[in-house]
Amino acid sequence: MATPSQRQTLRILDIIRKKRDGGELSAAEIESVISGYTRGDFPDYQMSAFLMAALIRGMSRAELGTLTEAMLHSGQVLDLSALAGAKVDKHSTGGVGDKTSLVLAPLVAAGGVYVPMISGRGLGHTGGTLDKLEAIPGFHVNLTLEQFRATLGKVGCAMIGQTAEIAPADKKIYALRDVTATVESPYLICASIMSKKLAEGVDGLVLDVKVGSGAFMKQIQDAEFLASLMVETGKRMGKRMVALITDMDQPLGNYVGNALEVIECLDILEGKGALDLRELCLVEAGWMYFIAGRCRAVEEGRALAEKLISNGIALQKFREMVRAQGGDERIVDDRKRLPQARSRVEVPAATSGFISAIDCERVGVASLVLGGGREKKEDTVDPAVGLMVHKKIGERVSAGEPLCTVHYNSDARLAEAQEMITHAYTIVPEPPANQRVLVHKVIE
Amino acid sequence: MATPSQRQTLRILDIIRKKRDGGELSAAEIESVISGYTRGDFPDYQMSAFLMAALIRGMSRAELGTLTEAMLHSGQVLDLSALAGAKVDKHSTGGVGDKTSLVLAPLVAAGGVYVPMISGRGLGHTGGTLDKLEAIPGFHVNLTLEQFRATLGKVGCAMIGQTAEIAPADKKIYALRDVTATVESPYLICASIMSKKLAEGVDGLVLDVKVGSGAFMKQIQDAEFLASLMVETGKRMGKRMVALITDMDQPLGNYVGNALEVIECLDILEGKGALDLRELCLVEAGWMYFIAGRCRAVEEGRALAEKLISNGIALQKFREMVRAQGGDERIVDDRKRLPQARSRVEVPAATSGFISAIDCERVGVASLVLGGGREKKEDTVDPAVGLMVHKKIGERVSAGEPLCTVHYNSDARLAEAQEMITHAYTIVPEPPANQRVLVHKVIE
Repeated sequence: MATPSQRQTLRILDIIRKKRDGGELSAAEIESVISGYTRGDFPDYQMSAFLMAALIRGMSRAELGTLTEAMLHSGQVLDLSALAGAKVDKHSTGGVGDKTSLVLAPLVAAGGVYVPMISGRGLGHTGGTLDKLEAIPGFHVNLTLEQFRATLGKVGCAMIGQTAEIAPADKKIYALRDVTATVESPYLICASIMSKKLAEGVDGLVLDVKVGSGAFMKQIQDAEFLASLMVETGKRMGKRMVALITDMDQPLGNYVGNALEVIECLDILEGKGALDLRELCLVEAGWMYFIAGRCRAVEEGRALAEKLISNGIALQKFREMVRAQGGDERIVDDRKRLPQARSRVEVPAATSGFISAIDCERVGVASLVLGGGREKKEDTVDPAVGLMVHKKIGERVSAGEPLCTVHYNSDARLAEAQEMITHAYTIVPEPPANQRVLVHKVIE
Repeated sequence: MATPSQRQTLRILDIIRKKRDGGELSAAEIESVISGYTRGDFPDYQMSAFLMAALIRGMSRAELGTLTEAMLHSGQVLDLSALAGAKVDKHSTGGVGDKTSLVLAPLVAAGGVYVPMISGRGLGHTGGTLDKLEAIPGFHVNLTLEQFRATLGKVGCAMIGQTAEIAPADKKIYALRDVTATVESPYLICASIMSKKLAEGVDGLVLDVKVGSGAFMKQIQDAEFLASLMVETGKRMGKRMVALITDMDQPLGNYVGNALEVIECLDILEGKGALDLRELCLVEAGWMYFIAGRCRAVEEGRALAEKLISNGIALQKFREMVRAQGGDERIVDDRKRLPQARSRVEVPAATSGFISAIDCERVGVASLVLGGGREKKEDTVDPAVGLMVHKKIGERVSAGEPLCTVHYNSDARLAEAQEMITHAYTIVPEPPANQRVLVHKVIE
């Protein structure tokens, strides 16, 4: 007679075999995989075989829906019904210089829409929202869910890291995917993102799916496919959804690095700053207002965002949020209170001409090797280091003119970073013909 | 900077990713996977992801050749060059009542060809050669490789189980495949079988690939594909190879169970016994003589085998082998010295007619539930229990006439076994039209 653990083994083997052979799993089968793995009933080596089969064979929309729900319900799902009014969030698949979250949370909350934002740390060449927030002296990202809910109720927005209560299945599965070459599945990526984001208890979600040399997705078709999976999965669960496919062929805005990106966000909230970053923040805020039902059209939402920036209410909301989460709000008026690198050096252009391309991933890695990012999870980041980008695609440059300014604390890997930046830029004699597009596509 | 273990991780992830995406691995990459996993440099969960990718994506002949060689050379390869003359072996993919190894080792050795045979235990519905040998009181299957070589030199044949020195990579990989739904890959099956068999130091190998309701391969195309992979892989390594695709739509011979199968082998060696079993032993012996260069044609080899049976030399060799391996050779003259079940009961036909089909796997499982086989590796087998099969496909039967006689020691699962046997048989009013074929195809 089979013991319970043998039956479990037989069961999981049947499920792995079915997915391996391209079959469609039932809801009960998928739930059994997720709950069994989360409880520790079956070992990593069975889960990694399952994940590889799922990556290669793909999943139906029904399977993906069940997978996402099972991962979502592996932990706590915030109940925000006590807060009257719509709650929306934004999620980006990550890029270099992508700092819109720090602008959007206070900006959208300033318009009367709750923004409960649970974010990740940076890993690899893209920065993480939590690391940027922690560049603000005193800022706590490790609130309990109770503190998070209270801050949200008081301020209208709150920004924290993933807690142990949120989608523990995803936490365990993601760690395994990372070491088994099973990260790059749009289905598994979708379930991972959506299970975490929907645990926030939001009514709607704006997805920013990055595509280009600095994004995980290099091809627009891949980005569109992932975006459509996430939009469909969210809708299936009754959420209002939109995905924007946006450009990551060059850094977003002009600053890359944790404290530097906080400064750039303050610029935006003060109505200044890089045009591309400002534009993307306004578009995404417009969509967040729209799916929250705050405005009847996206354009109307965008106009509201512009107004809340120009009248200073958005910046005031940022101040409130920083204060509520224990941070030093004086950084708003005195940016020198943010960590600053000891040294700066410019990276000059080798030739004259026009910037035709930037290998944006190299720019991200340059910031990482200076200490601004993580090669592995255990690494600590240096909040002060990073880059100021002076030249972007289409701009004219003269030989010797600075492409970037490097902010650094140690010259251990400085030369490496400088070389990466130099090699990231392509300079050609004639101005490039193509017009830059910030938002490639909107998927509703 | 990456530490050595991180570099290892990066390396194996690149290899997994390449196979996952359908690429062809280099010899160095495959060797790195096998040696790294055998040494314990990377964990089970990475290997299972690799195995699943290899199962789904398949392998080229070059990859398969390297994989087999890497697994073979993960351990000791017997050097039998001190023994003058050809060494050949036979390997069967396993079936119900498949006991030819016990006949062939002494029979072929009796003709002056060395037969170094390293076999496995039964698992699931098919019996294992080692379990049958251990039904002989005193018989040792756990000889050291030195004792094995000495017995082989003295007797001409020797039969043992896989030792720790033989293909340790396969041992570790097989255990993992068994619990990750990665058994059913013809490439991985080929590498597993061939790495173990070629470690015996043989010059040639006769493969018996079973197909039918009692075999792992239910479809003849699947059996042919596996056979061709093994033949090609063996030839690539300079071995003389042949594969026979043989019938497993009903039990081979009339006895199923460990001691019962030893009795049936004695019958064959005495020139008696079931015709199908006798025929297959003669054909396979003919091929073994032929690839050993002992005969110029297979038919000539078959005639030699018939002669060695009729003049008693093969039976005498069986006696020698049993004695050399510590067994009680008196079983040859007094079969009551073999373990005998306490009770017998007949399973009668429910209706009259002709046997048109036997679900042979059910017959195997019936013997297993009586205690004659293993559901899991740790189970011990009861050598005495099993079945005598009285009716095979094409035979006429009257209602109430026995289909099988069950030999049992405990009635705990007797009813279950009886019901399985009853349901295994299909009885129809008219004799079935198809002629039974024992050897479907020969692949050289």
